[in-house]
Amino acid sequence: MERRSAVVLVSGGLDSATVLAIANERGFRCHAISFRYGQRHAIELQAAAAVCQSLGAHSHRVVDVDLRAFGGSALTDDGIAVPQGRSSREMQSGIPVTYVPARNTIFLSFALALAEVEGARDIFVGVNAVDYSGYPDCRPEYLAAFQTLANLATRIGIEANDVDGRIRIQAPLVSLSKAQIISEGTRLHVDYGLTWSCYDPQPAAPTLEPLARLKVRACAVCDSCLIRKQGFSDAGVNDPTPYV
Amino acid sequence: MERRSAVVLVSGGLDSATVLAIANERGFRCHAISFRYGQRHAIELQAAAAVCQSLGAHSHRVVDVDLRAFGGSALTDDGIAVPQGRSSREMQSGIPVTYVPARNTIFLSFALALAEVEGARDIFVGVNAVDYSGYPDCRPEYLAAFQTLANLATRIGIEANDVDGRIRIQAPLVSLSKAQIISEGTRLHVDYGLTWSCYDPQPAAPTLEPLARLKVRACAVCDSCLIRKQGFSDAGVNDPTPYV
Repeated sequence: MERRSAVVLVSGGLDSATVLAIANERGFRCHAISFRYGQRHAIELQAAAAVCQSLGAHSHRVVDVDLRAFGGSALTDDGIAVPQGRSSREMQSGIPVTYVPARNTIFLSFALALAEVEGARDIFVGVNAVDYSGYPDCRPEYLAAFQTLANLATRIGIEANDVDGRIRIQAPLVSLSKAQIISEGTRLHVDYGLTWSCYDPQPAAPTLEPLARLKVRACAVCDSCLIRKQGFSDAGVNDPTPYV
Repeated sequence: MERRSAVVLVSGGLDSATVLAIANERGFRCHAISFRYGQRHAIELQAAAAVCQSLGAHSHRVVDVDLRAFGGSALTDDGIAVPQGRSSREMQSGIPVTYVPARNTIFLSFALALAEVEGARDIFVGVNAVDYSGYPDCRPEYLAAFQTLANLATRIGIEANDVDGRIRIQAPLVSLSKAQIISEGTRLHVDYGLTWSCYDPQPAAPTLEPLARLKVRACAVCDSCLIRKQGFSDAGVNDPTPYV
């Protein structure tokens, strides 16, 4: 029997790499999709390509979407600084400036288009409501609303005869802690040394270390670095990240 | 009192020009958004710019989104022919090949991002469930689902204290016939000579006519031309379109 196709959003970060490994384990033929959206950490797209190759994605598309034209986020607007050294309590209070307006909605919409073209019913996304509780578009009720929309929006959804034929938004990490995600990925042999999380990459000093091939280092102080470091520590797994 | 901002999707076609005029009449400061998505009728973007200027849009952004990378539609895939000379009964049966996978979801997602950045609560879109009943993403239940999603997806939606603060998807044409749309636009002084509907533009023969400035002519036989011609005829309004 032919494997069922799935679309997997792969950012190059730790979460989506784990999701790709999970979709693989569940037997899907995975069509990966990444976005070049004017992010200051475009280095993550190199990481996405490495992750897709390492985990054997069936295809990998990088779609250009110009979110910089809109501004409004520290991730796409050079005039807004990335916060540094925040406590986890500070991270949990309100919507952070690294929130990109409607980003997940835009990304899921492209994933939905790809699902229609590839005949995929399953869209895997690595959103997580635990560590990113301040992002409105990482919550389970948001994902449920997108799934409802997806089935009203598409030929696949309209023509589905039963639940099995309908589109599913799969977010296997949504209620896991970062440490649990890392433990799960480690079990699935994800090479986290290929992944990139830092929002604010720093130039690396010349060095002979193998990881210096990226020519940048993780800042170690943005929210994403702090969550990542704590996650590896809590999971008791060695953190391969090249920090400054 | 400062005028409230709205985002208006302007394709360059007849419907969205009418919607822009309606949003204007309702007193909104209109931020128009158009998309260069690999459509074979990219001529509509010139029409969009002319419409925005003519109707006094406060701003007009053209966003590049590469839907050609996905294929699957006669509008973006040169290998799929645009149907010609279909009866209205044929147009109503099933989802046409000119349907672009998830297109309205992608367009509305970008409009949502722009709404967040501009602080707009109202997103106007010219979808119509009468003449385009075959498109899943032109139906009222689809629009309602997108509105639900929009308010779960965004800072504006999350932080709204009352209904007035929430995001509204406004589709004033959704239940109008093409003739009714043309009558309404004519009342609002829309210059339909600036708009473009044809899916399959044809090269124009050299001529001295003023409309030949576009250097193309409407094919007169695609679904969109047929619906447009019938609409002007039914409304008893002169059709300014340069057909072949």
